[in-house]
Amino acid sequence: MYPESLKNLIESLKLFPGIGEKTAERMAFSVMDMDDEKIEFISNSLSEINHKIKRCSICNSLTEHDVCEICSNKLRDNSVLCVVEDPKNVILFEKLAIFNGVYHVLNGLISPLEGINPEDIELNKLIDRVKNGNFLEIILAFKPSIEGETTSLYIKKILCDLNITITKIASGVPMGADMEYIDAITLERALFDRKNIE
Amino acid sequence: MYPESLKNLIESLKLFPGIGEKTAERMAFSVMDMDDEKIEFISNSLSEINHKIKRCSICNSLTEHDVCEICSNKLRDNSVLCVVEDPKNVILFEKLAIFNGVYHVLNGLISPLEGINPEDIELNKLIDRVKNGNFLEIILAFKPSIEGETTSLYIKKILCDLNITITKIASGVPMGADMEYIDAITLERALFDRKNIE
Repeated sequence: MYPESLKNLIESLKLFPGIGEKTAERMAFSVMDMDDEKIEFISNSLSEINHKIKRCSICNSLTEHDVCEICSNKLRDNSVLCVVEDPKNVILFEKLAIFNGVYHVLNGLISPLEGINPEDIELNKLIDRVKNGNFLEIILAFKPSIEGETTSLYIKKILCDLNITITKIASGVPMGADMEYIDAITLERALFDRKNIE
Repeated sequence: MYPESLKNLIESLKLFPGIGEKTAERMAFSVMDMDDEKIEFISNSLSEINHKIKRCSICNSLTEHDVCEICSNKLRDNSVLCVVEDPKNVILFEKLAIFNGVYHVLNGLISPLEGINPEDIELNKLIDRVKNGNFLEIILAFKPSIEGETTSLYIKKILCDLNITITKIASGVPMGADMEYIDAITLERALFDRKNIE
């Protein structure tokens, strides 16, 4: 029904997550109204991304260089290390602009159910970095889930002999949330982790 | 915050309609998980679309050849012509597989308010085709709007001297719609265009 090249374009756009037939069609038709310069911009950006982007040799975060901007920034506090699951999380924290320490990106979280073991997420790289570094605090910033908890406990167990404070980000009722919409587990955790009012 | 090439990719994906910052970020990150073959497929499909796709020399529809598949199909009924506003509409009708005539695609609709005149939508090409063809019926399939009505009336006026039936698709209450959600103009039109029950 569609000319071959239009069909190809629609099929190729459906490779993106969350893009179905209708959206892909709309996107494909919009391409036919774009000038060559714009199309080239999209097409080139796509082609070069995986050649240019690599993982930082220190923290595993995304970078175009051997060492990422954060690791090579002399002004960052090298005594606090924030461990995250995914490079996207680094960007989330950086957007907040409230953390001046450095990061370490794991390759996911330990999940015995899915057969993801400590070696699959390159935990050794983190352990070596901590043992050879001068960190005073390690902040574990994983999502509150069985995988997040398992990974936190595992890291805590290995690093507990070193004289380093190991913390994890608070979980509980999110700011601005209506109490009646909070799920039972979150509420239970919020009650259990209650704090003195200062 | 993002490496340059990732920032470029996100910006470029935002050129698609309906793709905002968040979706573009999600799409860009998904690209980094794709293998080179898939990325190349998307990138090539994009680059080649505007070089390969052109307008059919007879009906203005999209094709990779000089004459589109429908116009060159000997089995189509060349006595019924369906006039539409946009190449997308041809595909809508073809998906239904209930029309075996041929199409003519205009370059939009006449809109005095937006300064779009008959010559801007290449109406002459349609008029010439009808005058030189052997059509028995011209079906005008425009959306029910001021622009659609204006264009229909204009075409009707020019072609009324020829011995050709000129019809337009019915407008009224859509199938399955709840009466209370129908807008006043549609309801008025549906009442005005009422039919005998046969």
